[in-house]
Amino acid sequence: MQNEIKNLLDISKQQMQQVNDIIIKNMQSDIALIPELAGYLINSGGKRIRPMLVCASYGLFKDKQTDSNINHIPLYSACVEFIHTATLLHDDVVDESDLRRGKKTAHNIWGNQATVLVGDFLFSRAFQLMSNADNTEATKILADASSKLAEGEMLQLLTTNNLRTTKDEYVKMISSKTAVLFSASCKVGALLAGASEQDRQKLSNFGKNLGIAFQMIDDALDYLENNDEIDKNIGDDFKEGKITMPLLKVLQDGNDEEKKFLVRCIENMQQEEKDLKTMLQHINKYDAIQYTLNQALKYAELAKQSLTDFENNDYKIALIDAVDYTVKRAK
Amino acid sequence: MQNEIKNLLDISKQQMQQVNDIIIKNMQSDIALIPELAGYLINSGGKRIRPMLVCASYGLFKDKQTDSNINHIPLYSACVEFIHTATLLHDDVVDESDLRRGKKTAHNIWGNQATVLVGDFLFSRAFQLMSNADNTEATKILADASSKLAEGEMLQLLTTNNLRTTKDEYVKMISSKTAVLFSASCKVGALLAGASEQDRQKLSNFGKNLGIAFQMIDDALDYLENNDEIDKNIGDDFKEGKITMPLLKVLQDGNDEEKKFLVRCIENMQQEEKDLKTMLQHINKYDAIQYTLNQALKYAELAKQSLTDFENNDYKIALIDAVDYTVKRAK
Repeated sequence: MQNEIKNLLDISKQQMQQVNDIIIKNMQSDIALIPELAGYLINSGGKRIRPMLVCASYGLFKDKQTDSNINHIPLYSACVEFIHTATLLHDDVVDESDLRRGKKTAHNIWGNQATVLVGDFLFSRAFQLMSNADNTEATKILADASSKLAEGEMLQLLTTNNLRTTKDEYVKMISSKTAVLFSASCKVGALLAGASEQDRQKLSNFGKNLGIAFQMIDDALDYLENNDEIDKNIGDDFKEGKITMPLLKVLQDGNDEEKKFLVRCIENMQQEEKDLKTMLQHINKYDAIQYTLNQALKYAELAKQSLTDFENNDYKIALIDAVDYTVKRAK
Repeated sequence: MQNEIKNLLDISKQQMQQVNDIIIKNMQSDIALIPELAGYLINSGGKRIRPMLVCASYGLFKDKQTDSNINHIPLYSACVEFIHTATLLHDDVVDESDLRRGKKTAHNIWGNQATVLVGDFLFSRAFQLMSNADNTEATKILADASSKLAEGEMLQLLTTNNLRTTKDEYVKMISSKTAVLFSASCKVGALLAGASEQDRQKLSNFGKNLGIAFQMIDDALDYLENNDEIDKNIGDDFKEGKITMPLLKVLQDGNDEEKKFLVRCIENMQQEEKDLKTMLQHINKYDAIQYTLNQALKYAELAKQSLTDFENNDYKIALIDAVDYTVKRAK
């Protein structure tokens, strides 16, 4: 774990213990396979960035905190993680990928059927917990985000194998599929702290731009050899025909032969063993990692700018550091 | 459409028009594939029994109706149908079945990936609509039901191919997978009408027992040749190794050879073309349809008894008739 995220970990530590307790308690079911399958992913070393963002965004407005809402923070943080985990489970089915966080994916062990249903269970459980908490505005933010998220996943499905996808469409897709839940996490934290509508919007923008940068870096890491992240196999996106920023850079700058290579590998999905190595050479030739990193840095900068007006407390420092951590992963 | 359900159709007609409008409006998305795929199932001739139950349960307490809640009736009815449709979409992936309501299943046309995601979209949209309506108690009932429903689907998955499943376990499974949403529909209707906690519980029991009877009859119809229902292919459950009441009757009464036949076909899933015909002969020999119908009639009776204390208005008549319709489908 790098230094930057350590600040975020430190300031949310106490609440994250409560978040973990709520997660463990509420993924239980009489049906033993549910906690077994859910726990497999939940305990697999995810960084829990989203719940930490809820906690830190709340802390940013600590002067405005009221006792009545502080109990909601761990609860809504756990719900965000449940929604995220449900998405990952359904995404694993969708992707037919083999590894997640360096381990076999759930659907490879338990099958598509159980994986979809445990995703449904966690998703329902999140809304069950939220309906008990009874903070309509916060629930609405996460319900809106969930529906956008499903649209984002759908956009990803529709752009897969489609070399006519533009960079704008790619940004729109990752905005929905990733940035929406980052944004909602920050907004919920601000809302529960009693922040003004204007300040909530600033936190929402912070999360959105952080999320876009985060996903771009993730997409760069997929082509980066010897990266420290254990989330993915290198070349997964290539093998699955996914359109990401590094690939779009090669497509933009590549010569005719390189474009034909992409048509065969991505559009027609006719890949051979050695194609990934060739793709990595193209990525290198056109500096596509650095290009993606530069794009991500723009969104990282926008994220930081959203926080300009706030006083420089520990929470703001941790949020800013989280942005730096996000982009440094690919450096 | 038989006479009995006509009463339910008649009394909910006006509100069901609003329900349909809400459904059509809210399944829209910028991503054209979402309404296309969702509409394929939503417009495929489902009877919309669950939303009609919301409307009729509400009507039962019409003296207590307040203006503030009447607008919530079509909305919550539409949400129930969205949750049900999401379940069907995920169920189709899970089941790998080929036909639903006499048509090809969505996953056969658009693939598992899009089908799972559109299910997620409809499910999220339901909670989005409910968070706007802001009736925490009603939302809580449907969130609880959704989480139970996922458990029920999981139980079905775990009992599939398992000949040690008992009749009690079968009833528990259909209680979760089917009866829970019937029960929640009736309870939400009563709640929105301002019924007392005691009366809400009566409606909840009504829906639960109706739901159990409904699923048992569905399971009987799966072995009934020349039935009028277009929901399913005959023998689907057998081919998928599902454990249902008719099969449990054959397992209970069958001789050693017939039990070995079930072990081969259901436990080991080694089936040949002619096996379904043999199974239908066993069903006939042990009167397994009539046996299942008799079990269903017990739950139908319990459903009717739950309404004993209410005055005999049009809504009560329609609810009672819906019970009769449910069981008569297999007569």
